[in-house]
Amino acid sequence: MNYLSINDINSLHDWVQEAITIKKDPLKDHTLGKDKSIGLLFFNSSLRTRLSTQKAALNLGLNPIVMNFSNEGWALEFEDGTIMDQGKSEHVKEAAQVISQYCDIIAIRAFALLEDKEKDQAEEVLLNFKKYASVPIVNMESSVGHPLQALADAITLAEYNQKKSPKVVLSWAPHPKALPHAVANSFVQMMQLQDAEFVITHPEGYELDPEITKNSKIEYNQEEAFKNADFIYVKNWSSFSDYGQVISKDKNWMIDQPKMNLTNNAKFMHCLPVRRNVIVADEVLDGENSLVIEQANNRTYAAQLVLKKILENE
Amino acid sequence: MNYLSINDINSLHDWVQEAITIKKDPLKDHTLGKDKSIGLLFFNSSLRTRLSTQKAALNLGLNPIVMNFSNEGWALEFEDGTIMDQGKSEHVKEAAQVISQYCDIIAIRAFALLEDKEKDQAEEVLLNFKKYASVPIVNMESSVGHPLQALADAITLAEYNQKKSPKVVLSWAPHPKALPHAVANSFVQMMQLQDAEFVITHPEGYELDPEITKNSKIEYNQEEAFKNADFIYVKNWSSFSDYGQVISKDKNWMIDQPKMNLTNNAKFMHCLPVRRNVIVADEVLDGENSLVIEQANNRTYAAQLVLKKILENE
Amino acid sequence: MNYLSINDINSLHDWVQEAITIKKDPLKDHTLGKDKSIGLLFFNSSLRTRLSTQKAALNLGLNPIVMNFSNEGWALEFEDGTIMDQGKSEHVKEAAQVISQYCDIIAIRAFALLEDKEKDQAEEVLLNFKKYASVPIVNMESSVGHPLQALADAITLAEYNQKKSPKVVLSWAPHPKALPHAVANSFVQMMQLQDAEFVITHPEGYELDPEITKNSKIEYNQEEAFKNADFIYVKNWSSFSDYGQVISKDKNWMIDQPKMNLTNNAKFMHCLPVRRNVIVADEVLDGENSLVIEQANNRTYAAQLVLKKILENE
Repeated sequence: MNYLSINDINSLHDWVQEAITIKKDPLKDHTLGKDKSIGLLFFNSSLRTRLSTQKAALNLGLNPIVMNFSNEGWALEFEDGTIMDQGKSEHVKEAAQVISQYCDIIAIRAFALLEDKEKDQAEEVLLNFKKYASVPIVNMESSVGHPLQALADAITLAEYNQKKSPKVVLSWAPHPKALPHAVANSFVQMMQLQDAEFVITHPEGYELDPEITKNSKIEYNQEEAFKNADFIYVKNWSSFSDYGQVISKDKNWMIDQPKMNLTNNAKFMHCLPVRRNVIVADEVLDGENSLVIEQANNRTYAAQLVLKKILENE
Repeated sequence: MNYLSINDINSLHDWVQEAITIKKDPLKDHTLGKDKSIGLLFFNSSLRTRLSTQKAALNLGLNPIVMNFSNEGWALEFEDGTIMDQGKSEHVKEAAQVISQYCDIIAIRAFALLEDKEKDQAEEVLLNFKKYASVPIVNMESSVGHPLQALADAITLAEYNQKKSPKVVLSWAPHPKALPHAVANSFVQMMQLQDAEFVITHPEGYELDPEITKNSKIEYNQEEAFKNADFIYVKNWSSFSDYGQVISKDKNWMIDQPKMNLTNNAKFMHCLPVRRNVIVADEVLDGENSLVIEQANNRTYAAQLVLKKILENE
Repeated sequence: MNYLSINDINSLHDWVQEAITIKKDPLKDHTLGKDKSIGLLFFNSSLRTRLSTQKAALNLGLNPIVMNFSNEGWALEFEDGTIMDQGKSEHVKEAAQVISQYCDIIAIRAFALLEDKEKDQAEEVLLNFKKYASVPIVNMESSVGHPLQALADAITLAEYNQKKSPKVVLSWAPHPKALPHAVANSFVQMMQLQDAEFVITHPEGYELDPEITKNSKIEYNQEEAFKNADFIYVKNWSSFSDYGQVISKDKNWMIDQPKMNLTNNAKFMHCLPVRRNVIVADEVLDGENSLVIEQANNRTYAAQLVLKKILENE
């Protein structure tokens, strides 16, 4: 069993309920991972993912082995058939097979570089590891998705939702740098598995991959989208069509209290890290409707659920 | 319970005795930290602190989770109300709250940058983590203090002292780079809790923060200060009044054997790392009166005592 | 007991047999290292050594504490008697003594810099740690040798060899950068302890240290060397006589299938990482006679054997 994308969840409802059960007694399965180890391979920075996945592993008695590929290992080649006479010292074919012999599970974080759409869409790092590894692979954020985040978000929604079909809005917000689409993609895919009125709002030109958004409603007027919303989930991403470009930094898209006042006293969500007073005003982030800290807390239980399922499947 | 400074020690005598007891049987409490973890957050380089705190945690059955913030996480913002559209990706408000959910204790190393006296004096990193975290905080050297080092020094003094009131001299020594005041500050504060004849010696202009030194005796003549000393504790620091500047590299202040001969066969102490033949001559550092290796050894028991007290207080 | 070089193996045959026994039941001694720790000090990049040594430690219940010296600690001085007023903050004399107090075993990786033959030959980092440490030292690749790799290679040879005295060929192959001699050196020394027809082949000018190769046969004609070989072990190294220089990048020395066809259906070996289509053609590396993944697997059992022997000797 792998956990590569939201598509690996066979029943979101059941997974969320099981994660909530784990949260009530996180040490219940503390011998499940005994004498096993998980390799956490980081090709990019990480705080929540780094720490929550280690915490989840420890709760299961699984030994975490952390490796920062960028400065601790060798630069990896991913192309087939290349003559490796340049900067890359090792091919992913060997790396993935070899690490599979040292670790019982491999978790990988490798962001989109936003330079080559085709490569990013192919999830070069994640899927090559999956192709050549002989152990389960966990996605700790790939170029296309961040399914551990979206699973934590689903847990948080379940904990705070009080309706049969809440209105949930995914809103773009401005950011000084070009960011990947992974978090937004997985959130969209997760919402498509939920009973909810789901709306995506962003400036024109910021449409996410249509193969991800499918029939999800897009509303270009942010204020219109916010009306009667129960949950506002905010995230910046760069353009997908004009790939990796920042085509707007429109400050009017920042989330502030007047905008939140348009909602049905909505809860505010963000995956963190968040830039204060750029993405969201202090007043909202520090307000009582902000769920961001609880979302981060649920990262542990999302990861622990995934690792538990993998360990039970072995 | 936090361990932020020497002021968090309620009885230095009792703490030192308890640490010496731990040292005799370091594995006695090896299940105290079971199923818990300590996050070790490094904003700066570290050898002794990094390894001894991990060793102390392991002796208590506590899982150490190490994170080098500088290259593994996100650049943190510490100011309130800023528009975060520059290099900083995450505010300490979120970081501290979030990490508190993954780790049962947070230990932090963040040196003085020696660029902004007010910021350094405010212990921006340490105290902001303390402000927003919901778990105990341990100071692994802040801009103002290094209380784990001073506690290890107190243990070492207790082990080697044979008098009711020994003469202990803190001597400045030259160094090519500007260094923080943290070690010297905490040593001074710790000595003020001891029954001792305590003298600080340094060139004029190198006075430490007067709010730290208080009534401690300052003697500008190093040779005069050394007379009849039982312990010589050496450390470089940059100017406090001319903040962060190196105003003297006077080689005459290096500690050599002729100077040690002025003492009462004094023991030599330094927190390490030490620059040989700049701070101290080989003959002294390698001599039989040098306690530097034992000081480093006691770092484990100082950390273990602090972690034990925190775990027992939870 | 230390494991610094192949010379520390008292009986290669017995060690290999014991490692194969460990491989069959790697968790048999899972309490041998209880409450002890091994410090893994990396002065250079590492994938296999980093992960397999941690895996081996965990299999023995030994706590691994990883430290990347280059960016986590202080720049070390190795010379005696220097005035340390330049870039180096700490002398190996203190570092080695101090770390010995925190870790029960110290493992060190420090490559040849290929700039100063005398310093590299003196194994400055490894042997200074050995000189000043008070705990066992393990070589995770020094400037002169990589005995954990060679031990894993010996295990792999034993697993696949079907003859009383197989023909084993160590072949140089081209590489764009100057590489150290450590792997080749230890392989040669290990082969000299085996019953085998051992041949080294490389272009003229690439002779390894004659004090290492001793009477081992050198054949400058690669095709001649390959005839009837049972095992082809490939590795690049820079010139030893013209120290650290790349004096040939002759592509004719790359290993491809036509060359392998000259052999007795030989197994292909390489320590990894390997540059595809530079050192070896895809067809050979991906072929059924390639043992490179199994060699990497045996790194765990080589390390575990060494750590087990050290723990049993304490």
